[in-house]
Amino acid sequence: MLDFRSDNTAPAAPEMLEALRAANEGMTPSYGGDDWTRRLQERASAVFEAPVRVYPVASGTAANALSLAAAAGTFGSVYCTPDAHIHLSEWNATGFLGGGTKMMPVGTPGAKLQAAQLEAALADAAGWPHKARAAVVNLVQATEMGQVYTPQEVAAIAQVAHARGLKVHMDGARFANAVAHLGCTPAELTVQAGVDILSFGVTKNGGLNADAIVVFTPSAAEELELHLMRAGLVWSKMRYASAQVLAYLENGLWLRLARQANEAALHLAAQAAEVAGVRVVEQVQANEVFLRMPATALDRLREGGVNYARRGGELARFVCRWDTTRAEVDALLAAIQAASVS
Amino acid sequence: MLDFRSDNTAPAAPEMLEALRAANEGMTPSYGGDDWTRRLQERASAVFEAPVRVYPVASGTAANALSLAAAAGTFGSVYCTPDAHIHLSEWNATGFLGGGTKMMPVGTPGAKLQAAQLEAALADAAGWPHKARAAVVNLVQATEMGQVYTPQEVAAIAQVAHARGLKVHMDGARFANAVAHLGCTPAELTVQAGVDILSFGVTKNGGLNADAIVVFTPSAAEELELHLMRAGLVWSKMRYASAQVLAYLENGLWLRLARQANEAALHLAAQAAEVAGVRVVEQVQANEVFLRMPATALDRLREGGVNYARRGGELARFVCRWDTTRAEVDALLAAIQAASVS
Amino acid sequence: MLDFRSDNTAPAAPEMLEALRAANEGMTPSYGGDDWTRRLQERASAVFEAPVRVYPVASGTAANALSLAAAAGTFGSVYCTPDAHIHLSEWNATGFLGGGTKMMPVGTPGAKLQAAQLEAALADAAGWPHKARAAVVNLVQATEMGQVYTPQEVAAIAQVAHARGLKVHMDGARFANAVAHLGCTPAELTVQAGVDILSFGVTKNGGLNADAIVVFTPSAAEELELHLMRAGLVWSKMRYASAQVLAYLENGLWLRLARQANEAALHLAAQAAEVAGVRVVEQVQANEVFLRMPATALDRLREGGVNYARRGGELARFVCRWDTTRAEVDALLAAIQAASVS
Amino acid sequence: MLDFRSDNTAPAAPEMLEALRAANEGMTPSYGGDDWTRRLQERASAVFEAPVRVYPVASGTAANALSLAAAAGTFGSVYCTPDAHIHLSEWNATGFLGGGTKMMPVGTPGAKLQAAQLEAALADAAGWPHKARAAVVNLVQATEMGQVYTPQEVAAIAQVAHARGLKVHMDGARFANAVAHLGCTPAELTVQAGVDILSFGVTKNGGLNADAIVVFTPSAAEELELHLMRAGLVWSKMRYASAQVLAYLENGLWLRLARQANEAALHLAAQAAEVAGVRVVEQVQANEVFLRMPATALDRLREGGVNYARRGGELARFVCRWDTTRAEVDALLAAIQAASVS
Repeated sequence: MLDFRSDNTAPAAPEMLEALRAANEGMTPSYGGDDWTRRLQERASAVFEAPVRVYPVASGTAANALSLAAAAGTFGSVYCTPDAHIHLSEWNATGFLGGGTKMMPVGTPGAKLQAAQLEAALADAAGWPHKARAAVVNLVQATEMGQVYTPQEVAAIAQVAHARGLKVHMDGARFANAVAHLGCTPAELTVQAGVDILSFGVTKNGGLNADAIVVFTPSAAEELELHLMRAGLVWSKMRYASAQVLAYLENGLWLRLARQANEAALHLAAQAAEVAGVRVVEQVQANEVFLRMPATALDRLREGGVNYARRGGELARFVCRWDTTRAEVDALLAAIQAASVS
Repeated sequence: MLDFRSDNTAPAAPEMLEALRAANEGMTPSYGGDDWTRRLQERASAVFEAPVRVYPVASGTAANALSLAAAAGTFGSVYCTPDAHIHLSEWNATGFLGGGTKMMPVGTPGAKLQAAQLEAALADAAGWPHKARAAVVNLVQATEMGQVYTPQEVAAIAQVAHARGLKVHMDGARFANAVAHLGCTPAELTVQAGVDILSFGVTKNGGLNADAIVVFTPSAAEELELHLMRAGLVWSKMRYASAQVLAYLENGLWLRLARQANEAALHLAAQAAEVAGVRVVEQVQANEVFLRMPATALDRLREGGVNYARRGGELARFVCRWDTTRAEVDALLAAIQAASVS
Repeated sequence: MLDFRSDNTAPAAPEMLEALRAANEGMTPSYGGDDWTRRLQERASAVFEAPVRVYPVASGTAANALSLAAAAGTFGSVYCTPDAHIHLSEWNATGFLGGGTKMMPVGTPGAKLQAAQLEAALADAAGWPHKARAAVVNLVQATEMGQVYTPQEVAAIAQVAHARGLKVHMDGARFANAVAHLGCTPAELTVQAGVDILSFGVTKNGGLNADAIVVFTPSAAEELELHLMRAGLVWSKMRYASAQVLAYLENGLWLRLARQANEAALHLAAQAAEVAGVRVVEQVQANEVFLRMPATALDRLREGGVNYARRGGELARFVCRWDTTRAEVDALLAAIQAASVS
Repeated sequence: MLDFRSDNTAPAAPEMLEALRAANEGMTPSYGGDDWTRRLQERASAVFEAPVRVYPVASGTAANALSLAAAAGTFGSVYCTPDAHIHLSEWNATGFLGGGTKMMPVGTPGAKLQAAQLEAALADAAGWPHKARAAVVNLVQATEMGQVYTPQEVAAIAQVAHARGLKVHMDGARFANAVAHLGCTPAELTVQAGVDILSFGVTKNGGLNADAIVVFTPSAAEELELHLMRAGLVWSKMRYASAQVLAYLENGLWLRLARQANEAALHLAAQAAEVAGVRVVEQVQANEVFLRMPATALDRLREGGVNYARRGGELARFVCRWDTTRAEVDALLAAIQAASVS
């Protein structure tokens, strides 16, 4: 079986396991008072070239929902694209954990949000009474179609948002892949571009069971710690989460893992484009490849033991994991070739 | 420094780490579709001698709040003692994550809930219109004062609860310690005594970063899976949580760890009782020892480097971890002796 | 000053006041146990030609949010147009009072929802895991642009909705105007077309301070009474709300008031269309007239003492109340003429 | 039938109806922009001898829940007696509409809260981590047993509360009866004693369908207007609610109505105390009389056509309305006499 359905099916990078083993010594204060959590703050501040505050949490959904709850406040609304993960794929965790936070879709499904679209929507909303208070704009890095916002694009959106009093939240489920693709620094893509708070994805890119929230702007997350406690998302033995995220950020591990996944995806896309009847949809900018091919070919691919995510009749997503090998990609390409020919 | 402040300061049992390492092989379906999660269901069903459904979660607070949210429904209320953990110590996570679930304190602080107290409270509530719907009774195992409900006591409360249509929830933060103390089977203390849903504590007793919800009565948790997803409490790489809980339940690890902690506590209590000016408050039934001694003695103990939890002027709690050694206990006893003498 | 800004600025019909006066006699059970509430059930059941249950509430927002909360349940989502009142104009009352209910915009702003659009959206949603559960479709009668769904259009949408297990909710803020325009029966536009639950607008059409929820399908509103109580929306002296709604439904008062408003709007539109530089946007189907004219003309109109709702640079909404006189409309037309000429 | 079950069964005072009739003239801005609402602010500020802000709402539950939601904030808890109306009788509206607000019972059921009890509870809570934030203390005027807090008692509690950063909320469902009993000014019992926000009861004391929130301390209700809008509790035709509350406050109507009810209750209690086998429980301080008499006598009373509220086997509550006549009380006394004798 060839597995290209998700980055969540992969094991963790060995360095992560080793970090857990190393953290399993002696007694330490609970609920984040430990040394690993302290070192994580320092390490992340170095990585982002700014004093940040990092909160490990159990999932990307938790990271998104709680960071948005803190940033939006009770009566705030969150602007996002119509296919944003927080809007379509998280059981309204943000609306619920925010205590009534509202999602306001703006822009075009499948595409990146444009600063002008946000400006138009906010200008329109400003003219109405009785609307929820525009509070946060959410950017997904990478988008649902694997596209990556550049630092310039983020900055343009942040400028619009900040001018109207909104905070900027980045859903960085594949933030490492975005940084690896762009070749910029993590700081350039976040704090220097105006991002106030980041859901920092770890699990999909070689982690075990912790993601993290990174706060750049303290006023964007004033009651975040209470939100986390009330949601049952503060581990008593925090060291086992902090040690994961710390190991992820040390020695460039996070970018090395992302680069591996991105390179596999680029190779897959380049070769698949050569197959007759197969079209690569969107330029590959992270670790996801979207291929359009005849429905019968997709059916044959599945029947032949290839696991991928079908997106409607003729569209499919193939995800490369941090540990996807060249051999796996080549086997997939052979299967695509065969399915397309027959 | 002698550390008796909490079981959360301990490292994890080596078997837990080894289980994570062993689980870190190959690809596997995400969100609980993996083999470790499947085996956990089987293992837990064997341990509890009944077909159960187990959901690993990130914390005891999450386990309590979400299991109660599912059991109580939107308009239900939860009866608990006035010092119950869900009422006083979890930032109203249950009220919030339940979408309006109400805690109804009944009984006496510091004491176990008695079936007759519950019956009286429910009879009183039944005579009033406009009250929240009585939905669940919550029992903490062990209580905030380290006391353990016997199977007979649980059964008596469950009988009252079930007769009035309530579900029985056990907050088993120290469930292993309770079973180890009682010498009964896990089934006798839960499903056979009428417990419908259990917050199954793992972290405090040698775990890393996962606790679990155990459902005995499916109708008591009908939408639990949706509650968990919406709260961001379903790990995509569930194997790393399930493998922990599975290892905990295999080869009697959980009871062995609990016995070690209980024995240390019993030894501490027995010897402390001999010290002049020191009184052991409540019989030790788990891994917590409550000592009453002069405030000045408690002050000296702290100054001398002993870490414990002060509970008012003359009362203090000392917790024995799974890895608390006899030498540590003896050192504590010497420190208590010295602090009491001077 | 000429007032065309809203139907909410009007006084109540004298019959409503008289009904309150008549209800102010003697003692009566509270919380809806009174005779006026009983008679309201009977009267509404006659009007809708089906056994209905009517709940007077304090506002249209309350009617929408609570009926949708009951119909959608905790995890359900509500499909509505991108400019639906519940989505844009009620501070997310539905999302909040529903305890996490999610709005899913579908269709085109300014236009009626089409059955095919709903079908496509639901088919798409059905293919995804992790989405909120599609639970209710919301239709606004009349739409934000004053358009009215016909019984056939409602039935087509209801057929799609019911086939996929969704309930049909009608936001009938101007339901009376819609019925008056269509010349159909209230039953044909609701229960016979598949509507399960209706926010029945009263206030805008000559009422004082009560609107109502009308339940056609009991299973669509199973815990509505608890939702209402918990939201503080059950009056202890319910007779003063029920008597209003009852009077509204007696002797055809509600349709007579709506017809007056509709006729004024039709007259306004017909004459305004004759004015050079003025365009009537959308056919008038209720009591709202949307006029497009040069921004300078709209400015002059405002400066000249005409009160209306500006909708962007060149678009304005003029609402005719139940008590808008022919003389007022003619004065407005003269002002429009003057503003357009100068 | 003799009706002593509730003050909610009474009709409204004629002055209230007349106020509605007088308000039913001409057009006026909606959502509180009208003249009646403006005059209400002025009148209430005169009554309370301080600049106050008044918000009419649909019910006492709404007034309590929304004023507490605004005062407590998302993470705050509300201290109240174990039998407080907000805790036992409003379906957890406060917990729900506050988005997770927690009730913390303190004191003794049936008795007024004492400042020392509050101080002890707050001191205890301050020593614990992980507790909800103590935010508001709630006083019910009159209590569930008809007892009235004096200005001195309110001030003592407020002093404790303010010293620890809590706001003081008064549930004034029978505030008029309390003022009438005490003979103090409304200011002395509220703003001058340290009350920050008041649920001002109107309905029970001759109103129709509006109660009100009175804000003395603006910082205690910072987002109250948004809470009210989101809860569907802002009437578009606000004049019909404001006119009611305004009439209630004019010419001393509210105190005159309360005095009538209180006097009937005092007469009832004085005479009932003379009946053998009947005991008046608690001194009558408002319009409620609690009588203890043999269960069989209470049964006979009910069978004989007297309507009252049974509170357990031998205890019953008799409420005098603003329009309860001396003849009705005397008839009740005769019935009590007869029931006790037989």
